Amino acid sequence: MITLASDFGSPYPAAMKGVLLQRTDSRLVDVAHDFPRQDVRTAAFWLREVLPYFPPATHLVVVDPGVGTDRDAIVLRAGDHTFVGPDNGVLVPAATRLAGSENPECYTVDEAALEPVEPTVPVESIDGESPQRPPGGRSNTFHGRDVFAPAAAAVHETDPAALDSLEWLEPTAIDVELTLPTPTLEDGRAVGEVLVVDGFGNAITNVPGTYLADRARIVANGDSVPIGDTFAAVPAGERLATVGSHGYVELDVNRGRGDDAFGLAPGDRVVLEPEGGEEAE
Amino acid sequence: MITLASDFGSPYPAAMKGVLLQRTDSRLVDVAHDFPRQDVRTAAFWLREVLPYFPPATHLVVVDPGVGTDRDAIVLRAGDHTFVGPDNGVLVPAATRLAGSENPECYTVDEAALEPVEPTVPVESIDGESPQRPPGGRSNTFHGRDVFAPAAAAVHETDPAALDSLEWLEPTAIDVELTLPTPTLEDGRAVGEVLVVDGFGNAITNVPGTYLADRARIVANGDSVPIGDTFAAVPAGERLATVGSHGYVELDVNRGRGDDAFGLAPGDRVVLEPEGGEEAE
Amino acid sequence: MITLASDFGSPYPAAMKGVLLQRTDSRLVDVAHDFPRQDVRTAAFWLREVLPYFPPATHLVVVDPGVGTDRDAIVLRAGDHTFVGPDNGVLVPAATRLAGSENPECYTVDEAALEPVEPTVPVESIDGESPQRPPGGRSNTFHGRDVFAPAAAAVHETDPAALDSLEWLEPTAIDVELTLPTPTLEDGRAVGEVLVVDGFGNAITNVPGTYLADRARIVANGDSVPIGDTFAAVPAGERLATVGSHGYVELDVNRGRGDDAFGLAPGDRVVLEPEGGEEAE
Repeated sequence: MITLASDFGSPYPAAMKGVLLQRTDSRLVDVAHDFPRQDVRTAAFWLREVLPYFPPATHLVVVDPGVGTDRDAIVLRAGDHTFVGPDNGVLVPAATRLAGSENPECYTVDEAALEPVEPTVPVESIDGESPQRPPGGRSNTFHGRDVFAPAAAAVHETDPAALDSLEWLEPTAIDVELTLPTPTLEDGRAVGEVLVVDGFGNAITNVPGTYLADRARIVANGDSVPIGDTFAAVPAGERLATVGSHGYVELDVNRGRGDDAFGLAPGDRVVLEPEGGEEAE
Repeated sequence: MITLASDFGSPYPAAMKGVLLQRTDSRLVDVAHDFPRQDVRTAAFWLREVLPYFPPATHLVVVDPGVGTDRDAIVLRAGDHTFVGPDNGVLVPAATRLAGSENPECYTVDEAALEPVEPTVPVESIDGESPQRPPGGRSNTFHGRDVFAPAAAAVHETDPAALDSLEWLEPTAIDVELTLPTPTLEDGRAVGEVLVVDGFGNAITNVPGTYLADRARIVANGDSVPIGDTFAAVPAGERLATVGSHGYVELDVNRGRGDDAFGLAPGDRVVLEPEGGEEAE
Repeated sequence: MITLASDFGSPYPAAMKGVLLQRTDSRLVDVAHDFPRQDVRTAAFWLREVLPYFPPATHLVVVDPGVGTDRDAIVLRAGDHTFVGPDNGVLVPAATRLAGSENPECYTVDEAALEPVEPTVPVESIDGESPQRPPGGRSNTFHGRDVFAPAAAAVHETDPAALDSLEWLEPTAIDVELTLPTPTLEDGRAVGEVLVVDGFGNAITNVPGTYLADRARIVANGDSVPIGDTFAAVPAGERLATVGSHGYVELDVNRGRGDDAFGLAPGDRVVLEPEGGEEAE
């Protein structure tokens, strides 16, 4: 199984699928292709939360603002899972989680040694006005198609424990690490931030949901709001705090958008405090 | 085959797919994940119109504003098709249609008896700041991943005629019925409403297309417009009424948006009348 | 393998998939369903650039502003690839490219001779208010479901070299040709146009990338901009020209939108000139 994730929108992912299907019969599963453009951190968050629900797979990830620069293409091995993507941190949180108590193994892709990607039509038949292939054969702007997809196809066809057998892979260390920010919890006060806002408008913070345990209300950035087990714990249109499906405190509105109601965007500071000087545990 | 439909946008459906693929090798087919958020009626309409074109399948549907409340998770059997989703009416019109002259059979899911969903990484290896699993193991806000997906995987692996063999299913009656509104047809006048507006802007009413038979024009909410067999029956940018692909009267604009031109939104009243006192059949 | 491409958005493609899966077990791969509505030229461009990366497949394409009119449904054969869609030009550039030095073979679909598409529920069980099937059995507004999908399923199940054996196919000539515009290159000056703008905002012109060879800067519509091998060759937010992944000159902004920064939309004229009277090769 190969999963695909990118910030490509459409139809670029289809070109990656064409290349994959030239080289493998694997099941292809889209994770998302609408990650915010070139937003490595947001993609890294979602991949860390979603990919652990998959059975062993090869995860092809392309959120790659540095495409064509000297950033490396890498392969990570995390247990029975493998990752293929740019060495810009986007793979790291998910691979770290899936590697459990181990560290992910990292390999650099020798791009020049990969079997080149070609369209399935003879290149010489393409007229001059429709050049199709960039000069040199590998584009500088679409490594998803020209580097990561062929690498992912080959990695998928290889036992994760035998990646060393792929001669275009060189063991190395991860260059760009990425750690999602963690909150400070002190004197019953949590100072964190919004990691992402989901499509419903829920503002997902980095404060562990356990912070809400045994409380009925919380003060979020100065406003007291109820804590609900479910969105429907408050009337439609009203604000609340919940423990979201990733285990973090989320600031929400029942049947509305929490980001708007709380005035929050990804990266914004969130201070959570007990109500009225109530002692925290 | 398992179809998936939701109002989740992205990337939440991928988490459901991960869970499904932990437990089944079934083909997965997306119906839509961009249903209007928490709009049970619109989703119910589309599912009723689209799912009957599928061969026998398990249909996983999550449009669920009451997630985590005491609304039940249910399984419906409609002939060779099965449905898994919340007991809020969203499954009912499609299941009723697919059940033909029978009634769908309904089962309640005993959530506590389902094999719990776990990420494929050891939970104990997850650090405290990245809690992943909500306290208690089953989130209150993402039953798509934690309840409906595992239920759908198990239902898919079971003969629809043998759902009784699943011990976490209890025969019951549907709690929340949902019937899409029907028009009144009287004295040659049809009083209905807009059921949905599709992505092209076509305003799909609940008036059967047969109402347009043998007419050349119709008065829609006071304006006389031509009836066309095809959009192209009128010049680009002009209004018309057609019989849409679901068999209903649609109010359209050739190469434009009917909803804007007619000033109509889902739920709006639509009165259709013959032109100039013309007698209806 | 069957690929699907349309301007349908959602959930209409699912109805096509249901029909396909009633009749074939083929892998289904979405190319795009968000092509600009009824924009034949843009869809034709993307299909020409993306589909050559696929292994032999049946390509089901529905961008069809003339649905229900007397435009034909056609099947094109281009080597081992087959195409099914409307005879409005949308298939032509991709099929021409995949046919290589040959011309695509064209067949007209005799719609009346196709096995009719039916929902998998007995039609007689459907109540009057929910007519489902348009009068006459084949809708005039959704040939994707009622004509192209069943034709594609049957074509997929047939050897491309034996399409003659399908009695509802009649050899014919393509009616509507479509050629994407080509630039003029004269005295070192290229006069072309924007073919499409991709989701990142890159304005993809029809000027071959070779025009940029051995230059460091270019004057695009009067403004001098650097030529970069990669987006990151200029600071974030700055304009540049690149050779895009299709081999054409693209006008871009690193981590921003080239269309906005250059004031360009699809179809707009683009004049490229060497800087300061520099001699072109």
